[in-house]
Amino acid sequence: MSLRLDFNAPDFEQSFAAFLTTKREVSADVDAIAAEIIARIQAEGDAALIDYTKRFDHLDLSETGIAVTEAEIDAAVASVDPETYAALELAHERITAHHARQMPSDDRYTDAIGVELGSRWTAIEAVGLYVPGGTASYPSSVLMNAVPAKVAGVERLVITVPSPRGELNPLVLAAARLVGVSEIYRVGGAQAVAALAYGTETIAPVAKIVGPGNAFVAAAKRRVFGTVGIDMIAGPSEVLIIADGNNDPAWLAADMIAQAEHDTGAQSILITDDATLADAVEAEMERQIARLPRGETAAASWRDFGAVIVVPDLEDAVPLANRIAAEHLELAMDDAEAFIPKIRNAGAIFVGRHTPEVIGDYVGGTNHVLPTARSARFSSGLTVLDFVKRTSILKLGPDQLRAIGPAAIALARAENLDGHAASVAIRLNMES
Amino acid sequence: MSLRLDFNAPDFEQSFAAFLTTKREVSADVDAIAAEIIARIQAEGDAALIDYTKRFDHLDLSETGIAVTEAEIDAAVASVDPETYAALELAHERITAHHARQMPSDDRYTDAIGVELGSRWTAIEAVGLYVPGGTASYPSSVLMNAVPAKVAGVERLVITVPSPRGELNPLVLAAARLVGVSEIYRVGGAQAVAALAYGTETIAPVAKIVGPGNAFVAAAKRRVFGTVGIDMIAGPSEVLIIADGNNDPAWLAADMIAQAEHDTGAQSILITDDATLADAVEAEMERQIARLPRGETAAASWRDFGAVIVVPDLEDAVPLANRIAAEHLELAMDDAEAFIPKIRNAGAIFVGRHTPEVIGDYVGGTNHVLPTARSARFSSGLTVLDFVKRTSILKLGPDQLRAIGPAAIALARAENLDGHAASVAIRLNMES
Repeated sequence: MSLRLDFNAPDFEQSFAAFLTTKREVSADVDAIAAEIIARIQAEGDAALIDYTKRFDHLDLSETGIAVTEAEIDAAVASVDPETYAALELAHERITAHHARQMPSDDRYTDAIGVELGSRWTAIEAVGLYVPGGTASYPSSVLMNAVPAKVAGVERLVITVPSPRGELNPLVLAAARLVGVSEIYRVGGAQAVAALAYGTETIAPVAKIVGPGNAFVAAAKRRVFGTVGIDMIAGPSEVLIIADGNNDPAWLAADMIAQAEHDTGAQSILITDDATLADAVEAEMERQIARLPRGETAAASWRDFGAVIVVPDLEDAVPLANRIAAEHLELAMDDAEAFIPKIRNAGAIFVGRHTPEVIGDYVGGTNHVLPTARSARFSSGLTVLDFVKRTSILKLGPDQLRAIGPAAIALARAENLDGHAASVAIRLNMES
Repeated sequence: MSLRLDFNAPDFEQSFAAFLTTKREVSADVDAIAAEIIARIQAEGDAALIDYTKRFDHLDLSETGIAVTEAEIDAAVASVDPETYAALELAHERITAHHARQMPSDDRYTDAIGVELGSRWTAIEAVGLYVPGGTASYPSSVLMNAVPAKVAGVERLVITVPSPRGELNPLVLAAARLVGVSEIYRVGGAQAVAALAYGTETIAPVAKIVGPGNAFVAAAKRRVFGTVGIDMIAGPSEVLIIADGNNDPAWLAADMIAQAEHDTGAQSILITDDATLADAVEAEMERQIARLPRGETAAASWRDFGAVIVVPDLEDAVPLANRIAAEHLELAMDDAEAFIPKIRNAGAIFVGRHTPEVIGDYVGGTNHVLPTARSARFSSGLTVLDFVKRTSILKLGPDQLRAIGPAAIALARAENLDGHAASVAIRLNMES
């Protein structure tokens, strides 16, 4: 059974604190294997890539080629049914429009004593996007990761996607074509991450790698971090719904299940001030899960990690929500708008009863790559900012150096860095 | 001898590529020790903190207390000489003024079909700043790390600083007081990082840890990442100077040495189109290093990692500089301003002959925490953005859900996520 917590119970704080520290990830010992794979790709390049792909994906790249061809992408696009393709286009258009607003502005100014200062933003030159294979090969993830990179101005955008027994998801190729991805390679796992980071004869190295993947991909990304940039390592997904009594329990149950069907490690949490609604949602979930194709996954997620918290007043939900720091937060209540400013920690907020979280997964326009496992306390969802970097600019003339140079000399001396002091003093004809 | 590369030599590309991959960090095997320390702090809290501090810092915290007292900070501030204190104040003022311009703006708008979208920025609630002890205990680093946090609106800003045999740098305490740090604890090493991440009886946990440290601190930060946020793990510092022939070699030599005196792993690189200047700079460096207190460190850095690259034309420096992606880039040339747009990858640019990099270390106003080891290709120096996080906002009414909901259903079905499709369909009275 999922957890049920009563705010007024004497052990509530203790139970809630324990709930917050629940681990939802399987910690497989995959790091050593990832390290070995990376070392072989570095040493042997394409040959190792071909070998691993034979072993793990049962595919001979020496026959198919490592790169997916334009003809294959053309065929994939042609095979997508028109309704789905139109949905993909709408999603692409809406995500692009939203992310275009995120581009940071350069800043250059002169202060009161004539020092010029500035910040200049430039796009990362080359980015690799890891796309999982098989059932987790989601076209929506391609859009969510690739669009911000494209908006940022990344010139070279490379996809790696494993192709078990040669199969590729046509929608993934169609999404890549829509965004304008430069290159697609049919490789996956730690070997794909290593190829992106260090390069092989076929795949030129990139400067940053983003995108979801299994434990081997995550371990490889951690290992190549420093050589290249990486995005956050995402954990299982979660939703928190704060609901008043005026809700259709079937709607809320559907939203809880949409989260739970992702993964047995996913988490759905309901906080409400209406115990009757809580019961109704739980009953509805049972009914809906029974007829769901991924019902077993949803049932396991709900049983192991689901929770319902009944509070005396919705105000009491505020500190709890800020401690949970949910990836997705639905505000299903009368004046949801007034509730927004109370929320400090959340990846994304879905406001009101007509904004199911699923809209944000696909076509809302906001990004669905969001901080999981309470990391919304210190990090943000994917944005254009993840694909640009900032260079600071400082410019002094002789007058400005005379004005603030002596203070730099004083601090350098206080830190026993006499060479630092000398580099300023020599320009001021001072003794260092 | 430092490396000398000639652009016109037949093996230049090969030598330059090898130069780019030079490792400058000692890879000590400290991870297992860091893991053990973290586990003990988690299990035993203050008791373990006291024990480790006895062992590593030769200090009995049960006598001194873990927290530095207000009286100690008062005494430290009183002991600082007025000139140095005034320099610290000037630095604080200038760094604050520059970083205040970096605060991102919230965005909230309604699109053509009535969907409301937004981005809301909030400060991280609690941040820990690690300050090294001993000779590397720099007041300038306290300012550079703490000011952006303060500008961002971080309420609780905690410093940990080891206090070997009870010693604390009064300037570090004075800088902490200037910025308005909330709490200071006299602990260091992996044990301080663990205490900040997991909390002890005395130290409440924070949500993010920033600041430089030795190999144990870096290993501990990598390990607690996920539970808390961390900043980048900085490597040894580096400077690249691009210089025309119109320079005083003594000035350039002083700047090269200011970098080299930091650390035997530091790196100073000169690119010039004037071979005579290159010779003169090298000769000047030898002269200046001979009379420098930290001359041995500078000499080792210069010998092992220093480089001079002579190019036929300064234009040839552009691609090399973008591949080096230096932490610090000095443009010591006639029209330095015109050179800025050519530079894509650099942590900070110091424009013109009167802007030695050292000004940026202390009083320029820009941050001195910058990406090292070529990571300016994909990352940025420390900014206010590192202390805020973004929550995205999405709000639909029934009309908007009718307009874009069907596309979400189509994509969810294409991804075999029927629970996702159902969560939208149930609100549209559609079959899922």
